Amino acid sequence: MIRFENDYTEGAHERILKRLLETNEEQTPGYGTDEHCEKARDYIRKACGAADADVHFLVGGTQTNTTIIASILRPHQGAIAATTGHIAVHESGAIEATGHKVLTIPSEDGKIQAEQVKELYDAHWNDATHEHMVQPGLVYISHPTENGTTYTKSELEELSKVCRQCGLPLFMDGARLGYGLASKQNDLSLIDIASLCDVFYIGGTKVGALFGEAAVIINDDFKKDFRYMIKQKGGLLAKGRLLGIQFETLFEDGLYYDISNHAIEMAMMIREAFIEKGFSLRYDSQTNQQFPIVPNDVLKKLGEGFSFSFWENIDANHSAVRFCTSWATKREHVEALIKAIKEL
Amino acid sequence: MIRFENDYTEGAHERILKRLLETNEEQTPGYGTDEHCEKARDYIRKACGAADADVHFLVGGTQTNTTIIASILRPHQGAIAATTGHIAVHESGAIEATGHKVLTIPSEDGKIQAEQVKELYDAHWNDATHEHMVQPGLVYISHPTENGTTYTKSELEELSKVCRQCGLPLFMDGARLGYGLASKQNDLSLIDIASLCDVFYIGGTKVGALFGEAAVIINDDFKKDFRYMIKQKGGLLAKGRLLGIQFETLFEDGLYYDISNHAIEMAMMIREAFIEKGFSLRYDSQTNQQFPIVPNDVLKKLGEGFSFSFWENIDANHSAVRFCTSWATKREHVEALIKAIKEL
Amino acid sequence: MIRFENDYTEGAHERILKRLLETNEEQTPGYGTDEHCEKARDYIRKACGAADADVHFLVGGTQTNTTIIASILRPHQGAIAATTGHIAVHESGAIEATGHKVLTIPSEDGKIQAEQVKELYDAHWNDATHEHMVQPGLVYISHPTENGTTYTKSELEELSKVCRQCGLPLFMDGARLGYGLASKQNDLSLIDIASLCDVFYIGGTKVGALFGEAAVIINDDFKKDFRYMIKQKGGLLAKGRLLGIQFETLFEDGLYYDISNHAIEMAMMIREAFIEKGFSLRYDSQTNQQFPIVPNDVLKKLGEGFSFSFWENIDANHSAVRFCTSWATKREHVEALIKAIKEL
Amino acid sequence: MIRFENDYTEGAHERILKRLLETNEEQTPGYGTDEHCEKARDYIRKACGAADADVHFLVGGTQTNTTIIASILRPHQGAIAATTGHIAVHESGAIEATGHKVLTIPSEDGKIQAEQVKELYDAHWNDATHEHMVQPGLVYISHPTENGTTYTKSELEELSKVCRQCGLPLFMDGARLGYGLASKQNDLSLIDIASLCDVFYIGGTKVGALFGEAAVIINDDFKKDFRYMIKQKGGLLAKGRLLGIQFETLFEDGLYYDISNHAIEMAMMIREAFIEKGFSLRYDSQTNQQFPIVPNDVLKKLGEGFSFSFWENIDANHSAVRFCTSWATKREHVEALIKAIKEL
Repeated sequence: MIRFENDYTEGAHERILKRLLETNEEQTPGYGTDEHCEKARDYIRKACGAADADVHFLVGGTQTNTTIIASILRPHQGAIAATTGHIAVHESGAIEATGHKVLTIPSEDGKIQAEQVKELYDAHWNDATHEHMVQPGLVYISHPTENGTTYTKSELEELSKVCRQCGLPLFMDGARLGYGLASKQNDLSLIDIASLCDVFYIGGTKVGALFGEAAVIINDDFKKDFRYMIKQKGGLLAKGRLLGIQFETLFEDGLYYDISNHAIEMAMMIREAFIEKGFSLRYDSQTNQQFPIVPNDVLKKLGEGFSFSFWENIDANHSAVRFCTSWATKREHVEALIKAIKEL
Repeated sequence: MIRFENDYTEGAHERILKRLLETNEEQTPGYGTDEHCEKARDYIRKACGAADADVHFLVGGTQTNTTIIASILRPHQGAIAATTGHIAVHESGAIEATGHKVLTIPSEDGKIQAEQVKELYDAHWNDATHEHMVQPGLVYISHPTENGTTYTKSELEELSKVCRQCGLPLFMDGARLGYGLASKQNDLSLIDIASLCDVFYIGGTKVGALFGEAAVIINDDFKKDFRYMIKQKGGLLAKGRLLGIQFETLFEDGLYYDISNHAIEMAMMIREAFIEKGFSLRYDSQTNQQFPIVPNDVLKKLGEGFSFSFWENIDANHSAVRFCTSWATKREHVEALIKAIKEL
Repeated sequence: MIRFENDYTEGAHERILKRLLETNEEQTPGYGTDEHCEKARDYIRKACGAADADVHFLVGGTQTNTTIIASILRPHQGAIAATTGHIAVHESGAIEATGHKVLTIPSEDGKIQAEQVKELYDAHWNDATHEHMVQPGLVYISHPTENGTTYTKSELEELSKVCRQCGLPLFMDGARLGYGLASKQNDLSLIDIASLCDVFYIGGTKVGALFGEAAVIINDDFKKDFRYMIKQKGGLLAKGRLLGIQFETLFEDGLYYDISNHAIEMAMMIREAFIEKGFSLRYDSQTNQQFPIVPNDVLKKLGEGFSFSFWENIDANHSAVRFCTSWATKREHVEALIKAIKEL
Repeated sequence: MIRFENDYTEGAHERILKRLLETNEEQTPGYGTDEHCEKARDYIRKACGAADADVHFLVGGTQTNTTIIASILRPHQGAIAATTGHIAVHESGAIEATGHKVLTIPSEDGKIQAEQVKELYDAHWNDATHEHMVQPGLVYISHPTENGTTYTKSELEELSKVCRQCGLPLFMDGARLGYGLASKQNDLSLIDIASLCDVFYIGGTKVGALFGEAAVIINDDFKKDFRYMIKQKGGLLAKGRLLGIQFETLFEDGLYYDISNHAIEMAMMIREAFIEKGFSLRYDSQTNQQFPIVPNDVLKKLGEGFSFSFWENIDANHSAVRFCTSWATKREHVEALIKAIKEL
């Protein structure tokens, strides 16, 4: 069985493991106060062109989303997100567990547009009974989205502009950020993102690390006491240096981008194979997740040698499924898959 | 200005005020442990044909909904409700503030149907990643709904059956229950409701009392320690007897039904006047809330003498608005309104 | 049985009931937006010498404490309170239910002193692992305290000074504020309180009203969006005018002070009777709660004609108990009690 | 600088790193559903003599405590713990953030005794106003405690007995469990612990792993839906196999015990050195944390070559400090420390 079901099927990039081995006997203070974390923070600040940013390392995505959102909102506020947003669907109510509603905006492709945010905002404040409703308190976007789509620079600029007009902090979930940056469609840099968002995070778990997400806080208003929040939400790793070492390795010389490029190359090969074979795609993703629509009997056949995720029923005989690549995807596995597709 | 904007524009039924005066100097123990509360509980148990029910008195609707729902759910569970449900829209995130998501079901008329609950339940449990999603934990309905519509006995039986099959407690918000029971369409009794729901409440605030809601817990599983929950959620009134005295008065000899009947009679007169004048209705409500669709210029004119609530824009020139009656609505006010409608 | 067990055994002052009757048929908008509330707010602002204060009416004390504290604190902060503080002991975890720890300071008499706050604050910030601990976020005091004691002007000035130095908002729970102001020991005015606290509330439930507490927000930082918080916490009474009418009556011509004075006069008579009979007092309360220490067999005898609250065991044969007076306490009841004490 | 300041200054035991390397390219399903996790669960069940136990792997201690406690308690319940308990002091209010109070019991050495639990329980239920107070809902102990002390088998039996009598689940935080089991004083086995506790966890972070805690749920009542809780609280690691691989390595052939024994041997050498030099110990710890009381000027000197944690001021000239050993502590480091102590 060759696995394409998600982008966390393997361990970590070999350079990260090597570095963990090399540093294993070093003695460091705990909770992210060591020199590896400090170096990693510097690399990330530099990559973001954000010398004053606060950078914090957390273990996983749900934890990072929850900690950031709970830190920003007041109790009567909610987080605006696409109906498909990770926080709206796949975090077992983690946001609600901190007391906040997720205010959803309909989305076909996983993205939300500036005018939708404006509309929701205006609808709230124009309602005579707005005090009886959850007040919009921030905007959450994922980039790439859960559907593999990405924001263009112009879209993100529009969103950012509306958010600033409305006083809504803009938070980008970058669990797969590397794959967004490496996408052929991409015209956004980390520097753009840092200048357009108030907070965002750079995903490690799915992009080469064993685990770990780097939260980057740009807006000064949200820097205060953030470490208390990480601790309270269970994300302050005792051996914080494990996170520092990983992000140091990813960002000291561009490894993060290199491995992201590899994943995109692999994903594009799979995409092309499905298209060539005449299958359509559920979403126009140019990132590491591909969503072909395939007849169910064909899926059964493919499933004998390859794992993938069921996404949704299209009709009685067709399903959309998800194939993921990652930093770890082997070229020979992709070639085997393409061969299998061709032979269908 | 004659007010029809809501059903809480006046104080309380005169018999309730009289009773508050008569008992004012009585000395009673606090927090609902007095004899008036005890008597009121007995009247309500009897009216519900539920000798073993626990009856608790709370001050308002949001408080009652929050306390009941937070008491039933485990942390990873959510409350199923119509998109229009009060807990989904108009409680400033009170349910989320206790850690729980509201899982919404689309609804045109404010009601949810048994098959929709079944579908949502099945969709959850059939999803391979259900542990990453909020688990449905109970079903919330309002009767009458926020749109004035009501469940038939057969609909409620279906809902109750599905809920029991799925292990989902059924909770009815009866903020306007009297007006549902008094509706001409109604074929449900309090006894039916008590046999089909796990928990429900009988609204006082909108049906003759100064304030107060009587929560009726039928299912033994949800009785334990409920008073702790009321206290924690800020609903344990020090002078609990105020609630006891009011519900005693409402239920000792049928006053609750009498005043509900009056409100319905008044509402039907308004309904007929709008229909006769050729206006259509946004919802087919046979309860105390009426939702005519009226041209905006006509509304402006009507608004000079009468207050009502804006409900929603229908098109550029028409709006749906809400007229409410209550136990307190004066016949001469309704007649004045009807006259004004006729003269439009 | 003559009841002295608490200060909420009766209904409301007759003038309040009269006013509720007179206004019963008035039609007003809901949720505290009516003219009675507006007038009451003005009276209270004037009484507090705080023209810019925001005044909100809530139903009960636990609700008011919870709403104010949850509105001020960030998620990682806690409320400093005396170990005996109402929020620390008698609110079923309402503060914790909003996510916040109560950080307790030892207290014999129910009060906390400025130096204790400073010490706790310094201990937190001097701890190298302070990010692993709950950050002090505000100071909660009750005045009079749960033990009937009161702060002097000089004590409150010291507390306020330390709080401002430390950036800790000072919040006073005034559930029995009238009885503090009327105490013979008192040298604090409402104007002093408004100038020294960031937020406080003026209790109605125990001082003449059927129910109701008036929250006074002095510090601009805590005014924003407070009505959302009231709604979310279940405290936004539909018929808000009921609160307005009551506080209007209490504050239009000094009724609040008059009835408080009466309660204190009654309490002092009881206090003297116990002292004369040779009993000692658990706390030196000069307010409406008196805590004599009485042999258990004597209590049994007294308990035949009078109700009071058990407070704590002093030794195998003695208990401290609580006798409360209020606006409603009848002189003949007090005289009967005094007679019974004398005859012991 | 040789570090003894805590027990998480290094990475992981070399066998664990080796195994992570060997398995790095394996493709596994996510979230703890892989074969390594399954094997690790089996090893742990066997070690605990608990074939029916549910075993879940989480990342860190605060997260594990929070998830377990929030899963067990109803909203109005609190967790009983020693005043020194980790959840009471050092988790930034994580328990309160899930809505629950920590009900503290005074403790000198970090332990709580059966009779203290009984007393707190009785005090709650005997209080006439118990519904106004947080209900005790479970008992939390740490073993070894934060002060290095341990429960004897007889003490744990007593605690367990009282807990069962009172209906209070007993939860043991075993962040340093290995060091408790390896203590010379110890007469408790994992099998004893599994038979006396309802839930406990076996710490990995401080005992050889990079990170990770294995929660063992013995009581069937608390097994249901636990994975939802882990996900919601941010603890469901995407690459769950990392936890499985680590615990597999620790438990397949007794590595967990071997490395624990090493840490205890090192700690006893340090303990003896301080005692021989005439220093007293703050707590009688026979586990991996040692708490000598040392003059401040001596500490300054020791601090030039060795790091340790400040614990508390004893008097103007003396402090208690903490030296930790772990699986990673090198004998030559301990010998250097002992030499330095001797030369003081």
